[in-house]
Amino acid sequence: MKKYSELYSYYKELIKSGQLRSGEKLPSVRKAADIHSVSKTTVQNAYFDLQADGYIISSPKSGYYVSEININNAAQIKSSESKRAAVYNFKSGEADEEAFDLQLWQRYVKSAFRQHERLLSYGEVQGERDLREALSEYIREKRNVIASPERIVIGAGVQPLLAILCSIIKERNTVSFPDKSFVQGAALFNDYNYKVNYRNKDADIIYVCPSHMTSYGDVMPIKRRLELIKHSKKRDSLIIEDDFDSDFLYNKKPTPSLFALSGGDNVIYMGSFSNVLIPGIRVSFMVLTEKLIKAFRNNIEKYAQTASKTEQIALCGYIRDGHIMAQTRRIRRHYTAKTRILLNEIKKQLPEAKAEISENGIQVKLEASFTGSTDTFSKNSVDVYIESCENGTIKLALSPSSIKSESIGEAVSALKMCLVS
Amino acid sequence: MKKYSELYSYYKELIKSGQLRSGEKLPSVRKAADIHSVSKTTVQNAYFDLQADGYIISSPKSGYYVSEININNAAQIKSSESKRAAVYNFKSGEADEEAFDLQLWQRYVKSAFRQHERLLSYGEVQGERDLREALSEYIREKRNVIASPERIVIGAGVQPLLAILCSIIKERNTVSFPDKSFVQGAALFNDYNYKVNYRNKDADIIYVCPSHMTSYGDVMPIKRRLELIKHSKKRDSLIIEDDFDSDFLYNKKPTPSLFALSGGDNVIYMGSFSNVLIPGIRVSFMVLTEKLIKAFRNNIEKYAQTASKTEQIALCGYIRDGHIMAQTRRIRRHYTAKTRILLNEIKKQLPEAKAEISENGIQVKLEASFTGSTDTFSKNSVDVYIESCENGTIKLALSPSSIKSESIGEAVSALKMCLVS
Repeated sequence: MKKYSELYSYYKELIKSGQLRSGEKLPSVRKAADIHSVSKTTVQNAYFDLQADGYIISSPKSGYYVSEININNAAQIKSSESKRAAVYNFKSGEADEEAFDLQLWQRYVKSAFRQHERLLSYGEVQGERDLREALSEYIREKRNVIASPERIVIGAGVQPLLAILCSIIKERNTVSFPDKSFVQGAALFNDYNYKVNYRNKDADIIYVCPSHMTSYGDVMPIKRRLELIKHSKKRDSLIIEDDFDSDFLYNKKPTPSLFALSGGDNVIYMGSFSNVLIPGIRVSFMVLTEKLIKAFRNNIEKYAQTASKTEQIALCGYIRDGHIMAQTRRIRRHYTAKTRILLNEIKKQLPEAKAEISENGIQVKLEASFTGSTDTFSKNSVDVYIESCENGTIKLALSPSSIKSESIGEAVSALKMCLVS
Repeated sequence: MKKYSELYSYYKELIKSGQLRSGEKLPSVRKAADIHSVSKTTVQNAYFDLQADGYIISSPKSGYYVSEININNAAQIKSSESKRAAVYNFKSGEADEEAFDLQLWQRYVKSAFRQHERLLSYGEVQGERDLREALSEYIREKRNVIASPERIVIGAGVQPLLAILCSIIKERNTVSFPDKSFVQGAALFNDYNYKVNYRNKDADIIYVCPSHMTSYGDVMPIKRRLELIKHSKKRDSLIIEDDFDSDFLYNKKPTPSLFALSGGDNVIYMGSFSNVLIPGIRVSFMVLTEKLIKAFRNNIEKYAQTASKTEQIALCGYIRDGHIMAQTRRIRRHYTAKTRILLNEIKKQLPEAKAEISENGIQVKLEASFTGSTDTFSKNSVDVYIESCENGTIKLALSPSSIKSESIGEAVSALKMCLVS
């Protein structure tokens, strides 16, 4: 036994298996070093990590003890695991472990810590300069969105970015969303006293998700994109293009962005990383128009940066080294494969139902006869997005992203139970 | 040479010193393993970190090269260092390296990554449950603020938390701030259509910083706290207590919080960690009243969590293990010592000026005769908060927090130049 990580695992297992119980004392650092023939530093490091993870606590001068928190933690982990097993979540959003190389990401976080000088200050309100440079290059290559780093604003999610936007476009009065699914966006505009409409092309601000137009994952065709741009230019309205899910178009080349098609005059381009990376990383960005970025910069003292500085620095390196492109390919392959497994399972288990893969390639559209109550799903721990349910027919949009590949069969069985009951 | 970190440092130095120039090829992994008598994995790890830090790039199939970015980076680091050296920043906010054990914090971030399952989901909108539990205990012990985890809301800074608050207290119309220094707060309330007043005790919402009442760092005396509570109860107004800087009261015990004094009925308690830890860590929290937390929870789908999940998990362990208390003692000792050094330097170099330490113990109040223009400071790269400048007298509030101990003398010389010119 040489490394501290082995020592860590050794004691962790003793504790988890109950061989060391809460309140029991661990060997002193000196004694453990003797027992395991390692240095005291190695023991100290292992004990420290056990403490950081809540398995043991240190009592000044008297040594290390198995914590009580450990039992709670273990209980918590167990209950959340069993909860997770019981719920079949067909709503998109969460990620599965296979889709992301967390270790690679961790290396970039570690690298961020090596730039410790930078972590001592609040950093730029607009977002770290080097990340904005990396983003500028990334969106140019990927989506033909040509914008200098000066026009990019970073934030911890789309909502904080929309809040900044709302505060600098006060002269506009109405906003239109494609449907009611983006509650956080509509609520925010409502708070800022905008009149919120749905599918109103004459609104002052038009929020669109061209790669995820509906909950079914329909993609906005290029003809409609051009019409929208023309109409908005005529009316001098502002388009907010949330490029969510554009990475997942597996059956065709991604359609050009509205920003690229319009020349960026009246389009605000927004992007996120929670779906390509993991939801735990909360960095989003927007590209403002020349006019709006001026308004933002002239009032910069009104704003504070919300995204974690460590994550900004890490993401910068991750993008700069090309990992984001590789990760996009990986996740696209992974999720589209899972979507096909889901489609096949549905065809096998629910042969009567109509099922097809959505345009964006990561959801299955399902239409089945259904006379029950829509409560059935939640009662049977099946979490699902119901598009409509009328005249004995139910339409569902099913995403397999948070279900592990090997559990898809089981999840479809649970879904079947709801549909036939 | 055994460890990959030594290998990393070895090549880093070669690159930084120009012995390996941009575009030059590094030895192959196999060859480097031979040269340094280490395993190929060790070389791979070292190369990987060099890549993550921007020193080298990998070219598929052909190997590793010293990056061009490296030169830019080095240039950037140099220019930001020289910039930093040229500016004497007497405005509080940033931290200095000596005040925070970044390595300890890193261990908790590492521990968060070991809970990788948790990073795959968006997490709780209100903030991670275990962090709220740790915070609940922490504020009870530290400030006698008794509130269950259910009443705590977490966010990436005070501004996103105020945005949530604004959206759930729409029936109120006026807000009062102690002075004009908190631009971000006033701007936000203004965006939400509140009428912003200053020092108006009859406003519907009263925002106070009892431990940092003025830019001079005056502390609100207990008598005034009780009066404010009584008055606000009579008028049914809401107090927002931002407990910023309460950790730094060195010459007395901290005054009880308004929340504790009032019983928490009409007080919202807010706290941050950017000053006790480092500004790079962006986690704040607020304790809502029973009524407001209900309103928040009933509309939870309107909100998104802004704080980094990794940082939330890390902070939870850090608090649970008692490090936050130790860090508070450490930073208090450190900053109060620096403040005394600053005072002594001022007395030595500017014997004519009136100078004393502020009530909260981490600033120096300076009053000097001054007939010049206030542009002088920025022209001489001295960043300073000017309280007032009239009738030949200038009043300054000086914080040494971002100036290194050994540079305080130099900084005061620069300040003297401005005052006598």
